[in-house]
Amino acid sequence: MTGPSIAPLTPVRYLQRSAVVWGDRVATHFQGTCTSYAELLERCERLAGGLRARGVAPGERIATLLPNLPALLELHFAVPGSGAVLVPLNTRLSVSEYTYILDHAGVRCLVTSPALAEVAAAAAAAAAAKKPTEVIVVDEGSEYESLATNSDRLDLGDVDENDLFSINYTSGTTGRPKGVKYTHRGCYLHALGVITEARLDAASTYLWTLPMFHCHGWAFPWAVTAMGARHECLDGVEPAIVWRTLREQRVTHMCAAPTVVSMLVEAPEAAPLDQPVALFVGGAPPAPALFERARELGMQITHLYGLTETYGPMVVCAWKPEWNTLSQQEQMDLRARQGVSTVVSEPLRIVDADMNDVPADGEVTGEIVMRGNNVTTGYYRDEEATERAFAGGWFHSGDLGVMHPDGYVQLRDRIKDIVISGGENISTVEVEVALLAHPAVTEAAVVGAPDERWGEVVKAFVILKGGSELTGDELRAFARERLARYKVPKIIEFVDDLPKTSTGKIQKFVLRDRARTAK
Amino acid sequence: MTGPSIAPLTPVRYLQRSAVVWGDRVATHFQGTCTSYAELLERCERLAGGLRARGVAPGERIATLLPNLPALLELHFAVPGSGAVLVPLNTRLSVSEYTYILDHAGVRCLVTSPALAEVAAAAAAAAAAKKPTEVIVVDEGSEYESLATNSDRLDLGDVDENDLFSINYTSGTTGRPKGVKYTHRGCYLHALGVITEARLDAASTYLWTLPMFHCHGWAFPWAVTAMGARHECLDGVEPAIVWRTLREQRVTHMCAAPTVVSMLVEAPEAAPLDQPVALFVGGAPPAPALFERARELGMQITHLYGLTETYGPMVVCAWKPEWNTLSQQEQMDLRARQGVSTVVSEPLRIVDADMNDVPADGEVTGEIVMRGNNVTTGYYRDEEATERAFAGGWFHSGDLGVMHPDGYVQLRDRIKDIVISGGENISTVEVEVALLAHPAVTEAAVVGAPDERWGEVVKAFVILKGGSELTGDELRAFARERLARYKVPKIIEFVDDLPKTSTGKIQKFVLRDRARTAK
Repeated sequence: MTGPSIAPLTPVRYLQRSAVVWGDRVATHFQGTCTSYAELLERCERLAGGLRARGVAPGERIATLLPNLPALLELHFAVPGSGAVLVPLNTRLSVSEYTYILDHAGVRCLVTSPALAEVAAAAAAAAAAKKPTEVIVVDEGSEYESLATNSDRLDLGDVDENDLFSINYTSGTTGRPKGVKYTHRGCYLHALGVITEARLDAASTYLWTLPMFHCHGWAFPWAVTAMGARHECLDGVEPAIVWRTLREQRVTHMCAAPTVVSMLVEAPEAAPLDQPVALFVGGAPPAPALFERARELGMQITHLYGLTETYGPMVVCAWKPEWNTLSQQEQMDLRARQGVSTVVSEPLRIVDADMNDVPADGEVTGEIVMRGNNVTTGYYRDEEATERAFAGGWFHSGDLGVMHPDGYVQLRDRIKDIVISGGENISTVEVEVALLAHPAVTEAAVVGAPDERWGEVVKAFVILKGGSELTGDELRAFARERLARYKVPKIIEFVDDLPKTSTGKIQKFVLRDRARTAK
Repeated sequence: MTGPSIAPLTPVRYLQRSAVVWGDRVATHFQGTCTSYAELLERCERLAGGLRARGVAPGERIATLLPNLPALLELHFAVPGSGAVLVPLNTRLSVSEYTYILDHAGVRCLVTSPALAEVAAAAAAAAAAKKPTEVIVVDEGSEYESLATNSDRLDLGDVDENDLFSINYTSGTTGRPKGVKYTHRGCYLHALGVITEARLDAASTYLWTLPMFHCHGWAFPWAVTAMGARHECLDGVEPAIVWRTLREQRVTHMCAAPTVVSMLVEAPEAAPLDQPVALFVGGAPPAPALFERARELGMQITHLYGLTETYGPMVVCAWKPEWNTLSQQEQMDLRARQGVSTVVSEPLRIVDADMNDVPADGEVTGEIVMRGNNVTTGYYRDEEATERAFAGGWFHSGDLGVMHPDGYVQLRDRIKDIVISGGENISTVEVEVALLAHPAVTEAAVVGAPDERWGEVVKAFVILKGGSELTGDELRAFARERLARYKVPKIIEFVDDLPKTSTGKIQKFVLRDRARTAK
């Protein structure tokens, strides 16, 4: 269906509108250079025209290997706006991983920064055996700048809303990365959900701490642009620079994984902000102590949940005004829950192996399954994985959770992370939350360690707050007040660091290996 | 296209979500009775089930003849949620107009209030010659209450997003009313635009001053529901009751036509609010004096523009933070502009007779034309009118306007209201704005009066602020400072009242008749 009463839903429209409404307002700021919304659209139209003139046809894949530079934002509009498909690459992978993705996605051009150009060239050369990948470097006076200022301008957004917008490769802790497909329609609607939750407006300033390559920075490239707010770009997440920028640029909004928040609140530069910042946290439930510390510093945390396959966060721990009168402990318990689907998202279900809903009692666990406009249309060039993920007509998250009587979802564990000890299923997340409730604990990761008698026993890796002293027995005693006896970690190892993926998630498979070898 | 990654866009989803997320919060409040969001969904499901059990099939038309009672809100979800089509009738039409609409739309049931039951029954009886229309009265212990509490519950929202949601009959100042078709998709997206502009959240309270039957109350039935905010219902717009409710219920948002705002700010109960209210005004540009007076009382006005065919307001005078530093006069000039399309709307064009864009110089007038998801799919059972309205693939608003260099649109006149005097086209809106700038003027309406020498001359009907004294010559002298000499009204008539449509628009055809007879 088409005609004057149907316009395709595409986030490219947000930029086109802001170039008119907020044309002379700052779109991006990076290291002293500002670009207005009118200039941003013009650069995107020229980029799209330049790529088209080089022969990039609609449907072809353009990859990026970039930190949160303005160029990455531009490519978010220029590439899909021209009908091509964006493939944003994580900046912390290995050459062989890049080579695999470039081959798998059949990437035509790879846009990168000077710092990453060598890795990009190596991957492109290795991938070129199958199909040549051109490398374009973002730099002053570079080929990228010629493209962004060339004389061919292309009108953006001549697309079908169900066209492919991008392919987002999963970090793939085990096995090959999979290419998660996003559509223009999905991105457009997901962004409206973010605008609604984050209450962005033209006076907002968004700080780019969360990588834009990770689920498109949770839709903020489009949401911030749609509202004519300011993108404050960063090429890394140095705490000193983040704190200085928060203050000097009067930042109002930012996103981060709990590990990044942890790093920020413990930095020497941490001190209360005179203007509060709305902080969106996802990837793992933030520890109550972290919540409290961030609050003291002027960061108002909202807890989100989602996967690459759900365009990033599609679930929000929606806070009810009446909860403000509850006790600290009750509030912490409520804040630990992942919550409810956002206003543009379909309801989640928690199901058993036969796709029956588990009772909404906050006790019985099942798998969290999703569907709707902000759920991937499948894995690129992988029919088999797509069919497996969508068995029964719902996307299977691989996450175990419970449904509370009030309709709020709480994550229990990744299915593959669950510990089975003496025949009992133990949620590692539940144990972690109990350990994190101790004021001296800043991070905790729980895995199963092989055990002859019990099959597995619970082992915890714990990072203590700087200057704290705590023994394993003390922490065990603390945990016993909150957990059934069989869930209390038998082994506690205090560590300085935890292995993490490039998106800040703890790599439990590494810890499981360590737990196995330690025995 | 369908599947797990495409969910139909329908505003019914907003209620289903809020029944979970905000289940125990107040959805509607009317005369001391509160209904929670969980209860509201349940009532809607039972209403839908009850109507289905009575044989109402998907696609059938259900009309309402109701003031802003909770029942009208319920029917906004229950009727389209069941696949039937809502036909909200203006409460101020004549029996013969209702009869025409009931016949034209082939209405199966007409839901009304006790006060309007007699008129409804008369219209239904007259229409029954073609097809029987059942009348259902909303009252305690009534048939409506049995439907809303019956044991058949229907799951809502099993629809295609391009299905007909409703038919909104135009007030039809001339000719027969036309049935403007709305789709589920259009309503869903339009509501997100309103949420974004109005910055509603769960703590908001919306006061129902704008009739819900008028373009679905500018999408607020869905927008307020989506955010879990409170609907404060009213069965009329008595200034004393409005002022009392604003204070006692701590209202945060409301909408009104300028004439209603005028009535409110001049009421004896008008006094500054201790909590500001966001007031959305559309239908006609608000006079600067009215803006100022409302501001003093704590009402923050946003100026909107649209037509029934654009789901109500699709244009907003988006305010730039930097404009706050301009002079009062400059700010007033900017506020008088209709503005830019909302974030979910496609850009407007202003075109000449050959569909070429007029220059964006703020001078050359052309017709405002629109397209996009929140533009009607056409007139119900009127192919000819639909084709005429969509000539060239764009909806023709019938409004003349100019495009300013910054992309903001300003209305000049309805095409049919333009005055042609001595071969010059004169915008009656431009003249009205000049007259309204006088502090003693509260309302002004300009029409052409027949004249032997000039063809037409400009005649103004003017209402003065209570207690003000002003002569026609004084007002003409004032207008001459703002207008070209030929635009200054030759004839000024001071009146106590202006004829208005049921939606508060001035009926210029009545004034033109008076101007003709007066000669």
